[in-house]
Amino acid sequence: MTTHHDDVTVLGAGPMGQALARTLLRHQHRTTVWNRSPSRAAALTADRARLATTVHEAVAASRLVLPCVIDHAALRDIITPVAAALRGRTLVNLTTGTPAEARETAAWAADHGIGYLDGAIMTPAGTIGGPGAVILYSGPDDLYRAHLPTLRAFGGTAVHLGTEPGRAAAYDVALLDLFWTAMSGLVHAFALARAEGISAAELAPHARGISDLLPGIIDDFAARIDADRYDGDVSDLRSATAGMTNVLRTARAHRLDTRVLDAALAMARRPVEDGHGAASFARLARTVAVSGE
Amino acid sequence: MTTHHDDVTVLGAGPMGQALARTLLRHQHRTTVWNRSPSRAAALTADRARLATTVHEAVAASRLVLPCVIDHAALRDIITPVAAALRGRTLVNLTTGTPAEARETAAWAADHGIGYLDGAIMTPAGTIGGPGAVILYSGPDDLYRAHLPTLRAFGGTAVHLGTEPGRAAAYDVALLDLFWTAMSGLVHAFALARAEGISAAELAPHARGISDLLPGIIDDFAARIDADRYDGDVSDLRSATAGMTNVLRTARAHRLDTRVLDAALAMARRPVEDGHGAASFARLARTVAVSGE
Repeated sequence: MTTHHDDVTVLGAGPMGQALARTLLRHQHRTTVWNRSPSRAAALTADRARLATTVHEAVAASRLVLPCVIDHAALRDIITPVAAALRGRTLVNLTTGTPAEARETAAWAADHGIGYLDGAIMTPAGTIGGPGAVILYSGPDDLYRAHLPTLRAFGGTAVHLGTEPGRAAAYDVALLDLFWTAMSGLVHAFALARAEGISAAELAPHARGISDLLPGIIDDFAARIDADRYDGDVSDLRSATAGMTNVLRTARAHRLDTRVLDAALAMARRPVEDGHGAASFARLARTVAVSGE
Repeated sequence: MTTHHDDVTVLGAGPMGQALARTLLRHQHRTTVWNRSPSRAAALTADRARLATTVHEAVAASRLVLPCVIDHAALRDIITPVAAALRGRTLVNLTTGTPAEARETAAWAADHGIGYLDGAIMTPAGTIGGPGAVILYSGPDDLYRAHLPTLRAFGGTAVHLGTEPGRAAAYDVALLDLFWTAMSGLVHAFALARAEGISAAELAPHARGISDLLPGIIDDFAARIDADRYDGDVSDLRSATAGMTNVLRTARAHRLDTRVLDAALAMARRPVEDGHGAASFARLARTVAVSGE
């Protein structure tokens, strides 16, 4: 048996766990699945998955064990009792969590002689196995190299971000910060448009125009932030606060919940009041670093 | 003289007013410029602009008058004393404001026999006259058609959104809502990455990957919101709140200002607590409509 055909155990059969297991089965891996409520895992037997009735049995079945459960607390509940059975095996943890949780689990794994890689799946379950999947990994180089032939089955882009175990989760939380904040702005924009008698379909092409501006701004801001230089930007903090104020006045007139933009305006106003109104909005990346000031 | 060579007056010579005036001059329009502090307008004489020393003189010089000043309050201060001189002429107001302000100014113009179009410039001054410019207009069809040959000089995309005068400003505030909220998420993501030892340059390509998801989500959300149906989305409200919680725990551990995402989480949590956790995040576009609930 080659490295390409690692036996693999998937712990957790939610939508993402199922997508992972189905992809492994399609790539001819002998795949064992365990789920707390066995009925969900049972759906995978049609794809030739082996069902484990206990975590111990699941872990014993494969050298590579992929947990993908609801959160790190659930993960620790599941793997703590089987630490001895995991010794000498590799955990590739695809459970979403914080960088601190990834580091804690990595330390626990090291204490028990368990290989540990942490992974962050950046794209929905439907992308797994196809070209659109993006999974970030962190942990020891040799473990990543050894299991990459198997992990490649998940398709798309696999990126190893370095040996520090929290790194994948750190990218994940930073990118979720951008994603969910932008999504909050999107639904609020649709709500404000609607209050003004503009349908979502009417706003959508213009909203896409706004999203088209982001890649250029991301690169421009990244260069400014790393150089810590904020002069000569057309999107300066003063114009940002003026624009936000017009949005807020309109949203309040329609009695919309304005808490998100109120907070964004408060964040942008502080450096304007401190005399930095002509600085790029990018400057905020260096000034949000102390809460409540 | 053809319609293509309207005489035009630009009121205001900030960066945007200057860009508008220079573009008109390049297109052979006899262009008169007024600015509260004349030194800024003087820079345009090299491009053959005529300088007006009073607003009255500026308004009398052209049938088409384009104010582009700091805000609607400044606009009303400037044009109120010259209402009689403006009678029979057309104002194309490119001053940023709220839909309510656009409607008030339109009503004032109608009362004084002044033609009125409201315009919202969606792109930076540097785009004016080039292919990237986007300007939205609202107001009477016949006025728009009559002046479009002149307005086309500003380049890019000109869109007439209908006769209701507040419509351009309504699109503008909705799009600024999306833009500035997303920008707040972007700078916060860079701050969080930095706190985790990730440079802005390292995060940037992944952040672009997130922005690449937005056009598809915008279209999907628009269809859901107009149909008021929120089932079967992978980005459901429960996963949103779980993701935001991981971001917040990490941001708090680094003592970042978390007010924007705290507000976004509060907004998303309400429908989850009301039993709509499996609904698409798009549902929030219909539930943010009453402040403070």
